[in-house]
Amino acid sequence: LQRSHHEYGVFQDVHVMIFIGFGFLMTFLKRYGFSSVGINLLLAAFGLQWGLLMQNLWHMSNGKIKVSIYRMINADFSTATVLISFGAVLGKTSPVQLLIMALLEITIFSLNEHVVVEILGASDVGASMTIHAFGAYFGLAVARMLYRPGLRNGHENDGSVYHSDLFAMIGTVFLWMFWPSFNSAIAGTPEQQLIAITNTYFSLAACVLAAYATSSLVEEKGRLDMVHIQNATLAGGVAVGTCADMNIGPFGAMVIGVMAGIISTLGFKFLTPKFASKLGIQDTCGVHNLHGMPGLLGGMAGIIATALHKKENAFPQKQAAALASSIGFALVGGAITGLVMKIPFWGQPPDQNCFDDSVYWEVPEEDEENGESMTHADHSKSKTEA
Amino acid sequence: LQRSHHEYGVFQDVHVMIFIGFGFLMTFLKRYGFSSVGINLLLAAFGLQWGLLMQNLWHMSNGKIKVSIYRMINADFSTATVLISFGAVLGKTSPVQLLIMALLEITIFSLNEHVVVEILGASDVGASMTIHAFGAYFGLAVARMLYRPGLRNGHENDGSVYHSDLFAMIGTVFLWMFWPSFNSAIAGTPEQQLIAITNTYFSLAACVLAAYATSSLVEEKGRLDMVHIQNATLAGGVAVGTCADMNIGPFGAMVIGVMAGIISTLGFKFLTPKFASKLGIQDTCGVHNLHGMPGLLGGMAGIIATALHKKENAFPQKQAAALASSIGFALVGGAITGLVMKIPFWGQPPDQNCFDDSVYWEVPEEDEENGESMTHADHSKSKTEA
Amino acid sequence: LQRSHHEYGVFQDVHVMIFIGFGFLMTFLKRYGFSSVGINLLLAAFGLQWGLLMQNLWHMSNGKIKVSIYRMINADFSTATVLISFGAVLGKTSPVQLLIMALLEITIFSLNEHVVVEILGASDVGASMTIHAFGAYFGLAVARMLYRPGLRNGHENDGSVYHSDLFAMIGTVFLWMFWPSFNSAIAGTPEQQLIAITNTYFSLAACVLAAYATSSLVEEKGRLDMVHIQNATLAGGVAVGTCADMNIGPFGAMVIGVMAGIISTLGFKFLTPKFASKLGIQDTCGVHNLHGMPGLLGGMAGIIATALHKKENAFPQKQAAALASSIGFALVGGAITGLVMKIPFWGQPPDQNCFDDSVYWEVPEEDEENGESMTHADHSKSKTEA
Repeated sequence: LQRSHHEYGVFQDVHVMIFIGFGFLMTFLKRYGFSSVGINLLLAAFGLQWGLLMQNLWHMSNGKIKVSIYRMINADFSTATVLISFGAVLGKTSPVQLLIMALLEITIFSLNEHVVVEILGASDVGASMTIHAFGAYFGLAVARMLYRPGLRNGHENDGSVYHSDLFAMIGTVFLWMFWPSFNSAIAGTPEQQLIAITNTYFSLAACVLAAYATSSLVEEKGRLDMVHIQNATLAGGVAVGTCADMNIGPFGAMVIGVMAGIISTLGFKFLTPKFASKLGIQDTCGVHNLHGMPGLLGGMAGIIATALHKKENAFPQKQAAALASSIGFALVGGAITGLVMKIPFWGQPPDQNCFDDSVYWEVPEEDEENGESMTHADHSKSKTEA
Repeated sequence: LQRSHHEYGVFQDVHVMIFIGFGFLMTFLKRYGFSSVGINLLLAAFGLQWGLLMQNLWHMSNGKIKVSIYRMINADFSTATVLISFGAVLGKTSPVQLLIMALLEITIFSLNEHVVVEILGASDVGASMTIHAFGAYFGLAVARMLYRPGLRNGHENDGSVYHSDLFAMIGTVFLWMFWPSFNSAIAGTPEQQLIAITNTYFSLAACVLAAYATSSLVEEKGRLDMVHIQNATLAGGVAVGTCADMNIGPFGAMVIGVMAGIISTLGFKFLTPKFASKLGIQDTCGVHNLHGMPGLLGGMAGIIATALHKKENAFPQKQAAALASSIGFALVGGAITGLVMKIPFWGQPPDQNCFDDSVYWEVPEEDEENGESMTHADHSKSKTEA
Repeated sequence: LQRSHHEYGVFQDVHVMIFIGFGFLMTFLKRYGFSSVGINLLLAAFGLQWGLLMQNLWHMSNGKIKVSIYRMINADFSTATVLISFGAVLGKTSPVQLLIMALLEITIFSLNEHVVVEILGASDVGASMTIHAFGAYFGLAVARMLYRPGLRNGHENDGSVYHSDLFAMIGTVFLWMFWPSFNSAIAGTPEQQLIAITNTYFSLAACVLAAYATSSLVEEKGRLDMVHIQNATLAGGVAVGTCADMNIGPFGAMVIGVMAGIISTLGFKFLTPKFASKLGIQDTCGVHNLHGMPGLLGGMAGIIATALHKKENAFPQKQAAALASSIGFALVGGAITGLVMKIPFWGQPPDQNCFDDSVYWEVPEEDEENGESMTHADHSKSKTEA
């Protein structure tokens, strides 16, 4: 029971990452904040129920549905994959399309997880492979299927304003702080939990320095880019995931964090534009840079660490198979899911209405000069009269 | 002592709900954010001290004031009733009026709680009746007493702007995430705590889906209304409160959550305008929809669940009496409190200054074109010269 | 191990104070939010690594670097001193200057802490002296060295706008809520932890009332000043720090909190302008009022409490020596550090670019009329073309 008390605290940390972290991280868009935090809540609340059901499918007990703090943590994890993929298609999909994506993605996630953990017996405590790489490549495959040539030259709402960038930092900082809880949540023993906490802590701290330095180096006049800071500072948490409970030491963790911070920042700067122009992959939040490449890095670090015997009963060939399985399921699953989402009657928004809350939300008008912004009273009146 | 360690974590979760959750939930008004989060802090800081004193009044020990984590949780609970009532009169009362309300409401709350728990022996672990229904009907009675005919046609500041709605979502999401801690905080045994956690979790998850679906159904063109999402998504936490530690099962919890989400959304859409126009009850935040009706629902669910023997030593007739007591104390106490608050010299703002921080706060001027916004230096200078 | 489970929760609370609390508290400036929360993250991530190294320097174990939750809490503590000093020079220093300050300040902090704890054997569980007074006077000494006559008449960006003040309240409220964790984190026994929690809780609650009352008394027309509310409400947490684990009782804690709230508010109102005009100390955030004077008050309260035998094995003369040591190290260390920071090639911004993110950050342009705000696509394009 003591264990479950600690588990509940860790569960709440993960919960904050899912609902505040992911939700606010995506509010950076100037006119898409309602959808970012609101649809995030919808997808996560739906996803965790579906994720619990999927877990019960694989781990039956007399046909009854069982629930525990441990399974609630796992349900949040399955939800995380959907929220990562959501980042790739942010602003270009309807809530119905996204609910379909959640349904299919969590099903496929749970299949892949079964393969990786039960069949292959690989180690992935912080889920660099099964959540981050999987969620990113799944989302990128969906984005490829939903490619919009009309947005090739950008969109006036695909950008931030000053305060939307500050809202996004709420998400960034909560993700950054609680990542040690994420990576240690399902570690086997208290000792391994402690190792996972400290490894993640060191990787993230080192990653911040690398991300700031790289951002300043690649930008004009040494200025920092808020997109890099909001995202690349977190890459260390992604990349150390697989190795988190292995004896890689603080120095090993920091090397992983530094590499992740550099790769991620460079990806935002140089790869994302190419992905859009050459490959037809319009990755709104740059999930390839925050979850895709750092997830791959994490998978590869796991192969190396197990080859160096940093964890008992973990083997490099199993790790490699798990990485391949995660990427494979993600790309094939994402492509199929993207095709399903492309069916015309899910209400996908036309190009000119992308990145705009007002398609799906009642948005207050802000004509401050004329004092015409809609009041609650007008609101209710106009609706009941209609 | 292990227990107190877990209790401290739960206390902090409840603390976050009180100070961040309630505080930011009310920042949705475009020009009343300073008061929402600032007066929330003032009322809560005052209320918890008064609440501790009231507890000591009922549970004396040799005339000495005692404090424990458990009592600190209960003090936060007593504060919650005031913050709920605050929502009903938000924007239309002075800080002094509100402090008087806090003083009287916590006193009456503690009286009712004594009746419900000690005399009637009813069960209300998540306080659907003693906090939510009580706080809501207390606030509505106050609002009725303070009815302002001048606001019948609305007020230009009684509405949101884009970023004020995002600030409010900070409150919503923190309330949503930590509600399982609220409903399980004072459960008797660790087993009952776990049941309260999972029941609340399921009710809230189901409630989100119901609130989104209902909001989309009742709005034009299937759009979502931010007011519904900010509030009705939480109704499941309110409604499952009384039953939280009973063996209603995940399915029972989800039924309660779905009903709460639907009722709450419909209330915002159809009831709140009628309350203002027909009954003279101007309920700024719609607390009747988030706390009032879901609280009643929770009380009735408790009657049914105890009739079905879902909890040992809990009986439907006691539950019904507790519900009646809570509503009774709330309506009578709220009416008397409203009369006291109506006494002219508490500085109640005139109609045209409602929903406006600048009556009670130094508000920065935002004339960006002329660069005239007040600087710190000007600030201090103008004050010391005056 | 149970202990470490509780410690991890407390560590996360402290972490939230460091990264969200300090970070958002400083976002009150209208055009300096990116730097406030962004440079706060950079300094803290750097500082905790350096702080861990310093701890290992003083507490060697076979030449190996050791890490534990306890040391991670202490690393956050050492970081706090830097973030306090950051407040004094906010808006007037470059990131490189600040990293140099972090390096030197943490080194000197760790030296002073060694003197206070190991050599003098003084008691300072919540670190009123070693963190708050030290950080404040260090920062003020740096600010004196970096005095800018050109800002004598203020600066148009040295002020807030409506929503920047709301962002700052996120920081205030998280600091306020989790301060009991801060002051109890390194208490010796679970009993002392509980005492530290409740003392801090009472001091903070009383402090809020004092700060509101004082702010209303000294402002025109009884209005509240957001600067006071954001800061002075926290002074009770600072001032009760040294005595937190002593048997001063709820009433003693509340007296300290009330005094801190009054002193702090009066400081913002009357002292800060004088410091700038008479002493050449331009204290952007008023850290003298939130950390300096309340820290001194805390140190003196500790002297009195130990003289009254409120804690075993703690003595007033040792406390007085610890206070003197902390102030001494701070003033001398801060002056030297300020001189180092004054060396021309660290990129200190010119007067007209103070309090402005755009010197160090890519800032989105907000010309909404013309819809010209920079999009992500433009962004990447312009950069890769350059």
